[in-house]
Amino acid sequence: MAQLEAQLPALKRGADELLVEAELVERLKTGAPLRVKAGFDPTAPDLHLGHTVLLNKLRQFQTLGHHVLFLIGDFTGMIGDPTGKNATRPPLTREDIARNATTYSDQVFKILERDRTEVVFNSTWMDKMSAADMIKLAATHTVARMLERDDFSKRYRGNQPIAIHEFLYPLVQGYDSVALRADVELGGTDQKFNLLMGRELQKHFGQKPQVILTMPLLEGLDGVNKMSKSLGNYIGIDEPPHEIFGKLMSISDDLMWRYIELLSFEPLPTIRGWRQEVLEGRNPRDIKVGFAQEIVERFHGRAAAQAALADFEARFKAGGIPDDIPEKAVASVDGSVGIAQLLKEAGLTASTSEALRMIDQGGVKVDGAKVSDRSLKVALGEQVVVQVGKRKFARVSVT
Amino acid sequence: MAQLEAQLPALKRGADELLVEAELVERLKTGAPLRVKAGFDPTAPDLHLGHTVLLNKLRQFQTLGHHVLFLIGDFTGMIGDPTGKNATRPPLTREDIARNATTYSDQVFKILERDRTEVVFNSTWMDKMSAADMIKLAATHTVARMLERDDFSKRYRGNQPIAIHEFLYPLVQGYDSVALRADVELGGTDQKFNLLMGRELQKHFGQKPQVILTMPLLEGLDGVNKMSKSLGNYIGIDEPPHEIFGKLMSISDDLMWRYIELLSFEPLPTIRGWRQEVLEGRNPRDIKVGFAQEIVERFHGRAAAQAALADFEARFKAGGIPDDIPEKAVASVDGSVGIAQLLKEAGLTASTSEALRMIDQGGVKVDGAKVSDRSLKVALGEQVVVQVGKRKFARVSVT
Repeated sequence: MAQLEAQLPALKRGADELLVEAELVERLKTGAPLRVKAGFDPTAPDLHLGHTVLLNKLRQFQTLGHHVLFLIGDFTGMIGDPTGKNATRPPLTREDIARNATTYSDQVFKILERDRTEVVFNSTWMDKMSAADMIKLAATHTVARMLERDDFSKRYRGNQPIAIHEFLYPLVQGYDSVALRADVELGGTDQKFNLLMGRELQKHFGQKPQVILTMPLLEGLDGVNKMSKSLGNYIGIDEPPHEIFGKLMSISDDLMWRYIELLSFEPLPTIRGWRQEVLEGRNPRDIKVGFAQEIVERFHGRAAAQAALADFEARFKAGGIPDDIPEKAVASVDGSVGIAQLLKEAGLTASTSEALRMIDQGGVKVDGAKVSDRSLKVALGEQVVVQVGKRKFARVSVT
Repeated sequence: MAQLEAQLPALKRGADELLVEAELVERLKTGAPLRVKAGFDPTAPDLHLGHTVLLNKLRQFQTLGHHVLFLIGDFTGMIGDPTGKNATRPPLTREDIARNATTYSDQVFKILERDRTEVVFNSTWMDKMSAADMIKLAATHTVARMLERDDFSKRYRGNQPIAIHEFLYPLVQGYDSVALRADVELGGTDQKFNLLMGRELQKHFGQKPQVILTMPLLEGLDGVNKMSKSLGNYIGIDEPPHEIFGKLMSISDDLMWRYIELLSFEPLPTIRGWRQEVLEGRNPRDIKVGFAQEIVERFHGRAAAQAALADFEARFKAGGIPDDIPEKAVASVDGSVGIAQLLKEAGLTASTSEALRMIDQGGVKVDGAKVSDRSLKVALGEQVVVQVGKRKFARVSVT
């Protein structure tokens, strides 16, 4: 077990909020490994870098000797959306859950240590809970308290329906902490209310309340919205090495620092040193290359990271992409934009017919790869580096 | 099965609201016996006349050939008050419930027909319900809909806590109608919201929604508050014949008509005839005597009713109580008032010492019975006829 002096700053790195620090210190002082809980949705096993902010923090706990409870919320997953209004949330079967859990494991153990991770399913205890127990659980909190939750109060004030069972879900999530006797629970900043439920219910059931640690939500490649699959602004951890590398190289210099803070495992003093170097004139692209290699290496190994760098350099650097190329935004039509339209609107060709001619002649590249398909579309939220001929470049965001 | 033309007016008599009349007519037309549900609290098996308003209506359904589902809400009774804030609602054991049910049966079958009554316990289906089923049930209604209930909206606006499980209880009560496939549900006017839940949940579960019939709440002996054991303004159906008789004779003439409407089984035209006779000068006391006899006979038989009348006449009429005696109100101290204080404040003696002297001399009667105990107290909410000497009378309410 690492020394307390070393543990606390490491655990607080990048965190949004730690409640209550004194309680965490007290628990760390005992020297016993802490039981660190984090809950995951059983419906979306396709992890992207946004998810890894939390996973990285769990990994830090493990590195310091603690025990991770990787909770899959299959109980509510198997209920689905009981109002039937949300067609995208059908009830999952046990087989769905098992399949998703396997996919999860394959991915998360690229970050978490297998030996210090316990994958748990809340159906284990919730399936045994009776309606009477649920009623008793509901009696522990008031309607007014529940309406304090941001999204509930907004919807209530806006006369948007809140189904009563939605008040029960935070209680279920909180009860999971009781069942697991969690010492610490991690979640995104949007989970704070639910994490506090865990504290309150643990007190109700005579346990010491868990410490809660919230992590910020990572912005997507657009630097604006949170990273999400549905917005298309994500980097999946199972994407091929050169995709991850290329996408990371495409982010703005500002966003790069944010990503480094939340995703890099480099020590904070090292990162402060880089910032200083850039202030003194070093090209931020050098930092970005190093960071992109770190991330590719994490998910695909060292050899793949080196190959991705070589590939990137061959395609871009050797191809003569200038350091500073103009940034453009092109509006999507129905969620994407055709390549010819994009070239015209970004000012790289005078017309769509010129654009199509250039494609046919092999003179158009997207992210360094020659385009041969006239009907290629670029999706909403994506950012691509486009090249026409030898000298015309633009970094185009589809908005 | 009685004819529709006879059934509808009989069923509507005294009722506050019938929803939806056309649906009731439609169901009656089928000629099949209806399943008529009414729910009872398993904690208060000591029935008073207030409870019998509803029981009488159930009896009318039975007389017309229908089937009564006498539901004892033991599921929630065994949960008690899960917030632990209400010490008067401890969780009941199965033994408590069984004992209370027996006491209930002994009492209700003085009104209901045994052969057309099915005593049912909602634990039968609710004990089998899982937390997941409870969540699905909760998903059928919104928070806003639940806050429409009178007491909830008042408490919410008044910043008084509403525990979340309180939102689940109306759903449980409504689900009982689903489990019982009720055709009709009866309840007090204060139950309308919960009866409507039954309709809504039956629709949700693909059943024809039950017809609901609400009955007014009977005022207590004070004519102001609803009859309730805790207010002391009640007539228990297990009280001795002369107690029931005396208490009924003590009510005001106005309240008498209300009681007759809701408690008498005499046909409506007969009652209209009495009103006419009183308008034309008949002493309402005669009507009251007949009504009091009807009620005593219902619970204790004809002989007891005749004996109670004879006893009453011997004590009051023969004792020369005038038809019109003054009505007084005396304020209680800590929930009751001593007899000497009461006599003085009602103006029957000049002082408490005179009152005590009159008691010692055997010159004071309460409800026709001589008082020998100087420390007798009359409880808050009670109304008594007090006599001092031969000529001084008052009907005194303790307020």
